[in-house]
Amino acid sequence: MIDLFGQPLRPINLGLESFYESLTAQGVDAIAVDWRPPLDGYAELTHTRDGVDIDAANAEAVRRICAGRPMLVGMGIAREVIPGFAPRGQARILIAHSGPPIAWERMCGPTRGAIMGALIYEGLAETPEEATRLAASGAIEFAPCHHYAAVGPMAGIISPSMPVFIVRNETTGHLAYATQNEGLGKVLRYGAYGPEVIRRLKWMAQTLYPALKTALEVSGPIDLRSMISQALHMGDECHNRNKAGTSLFIRALAPALVEAMRDPATVAAVLRFIDGNDHFFLNLSMPAMKAMLLPAENIPGCTIVTVMARNGTDWGIRMSATGDRWFTAPAPLVQGLWLPGFSGADANPDIGDSAITETGGIGGFALAGAPAIVKFVGGTPADALNATMEMYEITAGEHTAFSIPALNFRGTPVGVDVRKVMRTGITPRLNTGIAHREPGLGMVGAGLVQAPVGCFAAAFEAVRTL
Amino acid sequence: MIDLFGQPLRPINLGLESFYESLTAQGVDAIAVDWRPPLDGYAELTHTRDGVDIDAANAEAVRRICAGRPMLVGMGIAREVIPGFAPRGQARILIAHSGPPIAWERMCGPTRGAIMGALIYEGLAETPEEATRLAASGAIEFAPCHHYAAVGPMAGIISPSMPVFIVRNETTGHLAYATQNEGLGKVLRYGAYGPEVIRRLKWMAQTLYPALKTALEVSGPIDLRSMISQALHMGDECHNRNKAGTSLFIRALAPALVEAMRDPATVAAVLRFIDGNDHFFLNLSMPAMKAMLLPAENIPGCTIVTVMARNGTDWGIRMSATGDRWFTAPAPLVQGLWLPGFSGADANPDIGDSAITETGGIGGFALAGAPAIVKFVGGTPADALNATMEMYEITAGEHTAFSIPALNFRGTPVGVDVRKVMRTGITPRLNTGIAHREPGLGMVGAGLVQAPVGCFAAAFEAVRTL
Repeated sequence: MIDLFGQPLRPINLGLESFYESLTAQGVDAIAVDWRPPLDGYAELTHTRDGVDIDAANAEAVRRICAGRPMLVGMGIAREVIPGFAPRGQARILIAHSGPPIAWERMCGPTRGAIMGALIYEGLAETPEEATRLAASGAIEFAPCHHYAAVGPMAGIISPSMPVFIVRNETTGHLAYATQNEGLGKVLRYGAYGPEVIRRLKWMAQTLYPALKTALEVSGPIDLRSMISQALHMGDECHNRNKAGTSLFIRALAPALVEAMRDPATVAAVLRFIDGNDHFFLNLSMPAMKAMLLPAENIPGCTIVTVMARNGTDWGIRMSATGDRWFTAPAPLVQGLWLPGFSGADANPDIGDSAITETGGIGGFALAGAPAIVKFVGGTPADALNATMEMYEITAGEHTAFSIPALNFRGTPVGVDVRKVMRTGITPRLNTGIAHREPGLGMVGAGLVQAPVGCFAAAFEAVRTL
Repeated sequence: MIDLFGQPLRPINLGLESFYESLTAQGVDAIAVDWRPPLDGYAELTHTRDGVDIDAANAEAVRRICAGRPMLVGMGIAREVIPGFAPRGQARILIAHSGPPIAWERMCGPTRGAIMGALIYEGLAETPEEATRLAASGAIEFAPCHHYAAVGPMAGIISPSMPVFIVRNETTGHLAYATQNEGLGKVLRYGAYGPEVIRRLKWMAQTLYPALKTALEVSGPIDLRSMISQALHMGDECHNRNKAGTSLFIRALAPALVEAMRDPATVAAVLRFIDGNDHFFLNLSMPAMKAMLLPAENIPGCTIVTVMARNGTDWGIRMSATGDRWFTAPAPLVQGLWLPGFSGADANPDIGDSAITETGGIGGFALAGAPAIVKFVGGTPADALNATMEMYEITAGEHTAFSIPALNFRGTPVGVDVRKVMRTGITPRLNTGIAHREPGLGMVGAGLVQAPVGCFAAAFEAVRTL
């Protein structure tokens, strides 16, 4: 022992990087190993207290997710087609938002801004100030989109008169909903509510929606599973890169649109609007994933995550075995690339239901197939590859419908297992847009983020009591 | 020495694999090293006999290629818009074909079949037999598409009344031409000439062509360089995978098509035809590459290949310094995947002007960006990556307009240097369709092929005398 300390030391530091940093600060030639101990009991949990085989339950969840066949079957107005969305009494006005439940007082800037815009859009307020008063008055009911089988990117606001896509999982009959995508920049879902935002939403309701609805009636249901599968072979990951998906959607719908509509100017305007927004398909990939994940909910003993969603204040997950229960933690900030004139100081924490893509095995989980996305969200193609590879460590299966050519057509990692997250300390990686933290300002960037471990720790505590 | 042969031998075989195979056949534990000696004098050739710096000349060629901005500027009928294609006298009927020059007697089955179909299409013959007699009579003039700044995939037939795309290199003013793509299977360019082939060609001339031409007049020129650049980030290599390019073309043209045409049924039929053929964009990527390569022709002392083209009998190249001269070698067979009911025994040797894509730095040279293509042409995604990496060894530069995200946005290898081919023994890698060797039967598969070294050896001999 005395001999040892008489020689030059070369310590190997396991885990906490601060120890390593103290050593190197003193000129010691140390090596850092990125390691976290598995938390006590996490590795051993194979059965619930009432004897359910967790691995078998999780395999069933993955089987159900992969077997889903989401089809775009139609469109409608939220209050008319989303079950439970219609007012049960005169006084009730429901506005759905992204992420777990949250009261007006705790809502972040972009969610508040988008709600203010929605109240103006609905004709319930004339000015932002009036909208703020109404929102804070208690007269408006707020609830997560997910409570209505709906999903909304970023602020994710759905108000009663907004048009929505209707997606049906043909394998199980589950239905899911999402609004039409507005584009990037100053748009409602990023918290903007100015006159140009409201004008665009009105045009989308009065021109875009009836055109797409009628075209869909001519074309018949559109196979979103096939479209996502193809888009993943065309450089999309179907969360922040939807250029191929948007292209395939235009190809599928354009002939029917031409046949369905009398007015060529309207058809051309609709085609130009979709062509002008490479993110249009996001609002189809999201409800497609929701429709595929719904059958995996409520499986006894199943530790697979069925929802990941953020409201810009809280990050929340739901786990199959615990059904509707939310497990939350504070939403983290996003590392990203900034639009001109903005920086990290402007950024709201992570927000949106779009993490449903990662929950279903695409988005950040399929980054390896979308190397070009790093120009939008930052990082390098090697980071994109590593992100996908890491997700195989916390998922229960590989997708049978979605694959990555560059990984020799390996199925994407699917079915986040709460146990594996806690065992490895690896949380899901997402890529996402970034909203300004103040209401009314819109998009400031896009980037990469890791889910906070707190949601998974809380869910795991629930697993122990199953 | 006697000691050596008294021990167990473990030979290392350099080069010719047959020696290695003989050893292993006798149970010897040998190692094969894939190696070819550099040919005498190839490595040293830095200047022409009259003192031109070959590297500088080649760099200028690459600069000119990369600076090209090919735009789709319009459409027209071959005899009316391709300079030199119009009959100078009553008697002259010109039919252009792919690859280097060839007489009817030496033409392969698919080229003969496509010419027979073209003569029927032109109303010059009523039956295949009549067409054969006419083609063999000497009354028809045959010439390479490349002699008219045109390019044609597979048999590559352009007859006088066929509609063609007109592509202009906005940097230099060079024009290039190609017909509209018919789709796969039993189509003229694969040597089929049955009534359904002629019917489709007539529809393409009478309905598709006027619709696209009118739409282009409304939309204005379409930037093919930008479209190819985007498609390369969407899993296309723009030779045998054109799914993204075709999608982007539909997106760009659909609104103008709707505005330009009165009849919705025609617009829908045109959109459905293009949507039904993921290879439609090939006949735009090819003339785009031709238009980018034309300014690189005729640079003194330049050993960059400006044309690679095959007529199904001969494989031919042209080199910048030697201008219009063809260097040829027998066309090899293609290794590929076969359509149901066909095998290698049905295959014609390598055919088509589509190697213009590889000549310009895309196609097989960009395979690393198109891993999904291996489902169509065979091999693995790793092979696709290696194909691109290998091409950097024989090219003079990296493209400044076309890049591969998976290689960290490295420019595609561009500008095949005849000297480097001879020094390394590596010839250009292409991927291509495969035609039935008999006239009239059409497509039998798709696959990968390496250019024959003979063309490059002949060109190198010419370099020595420059």
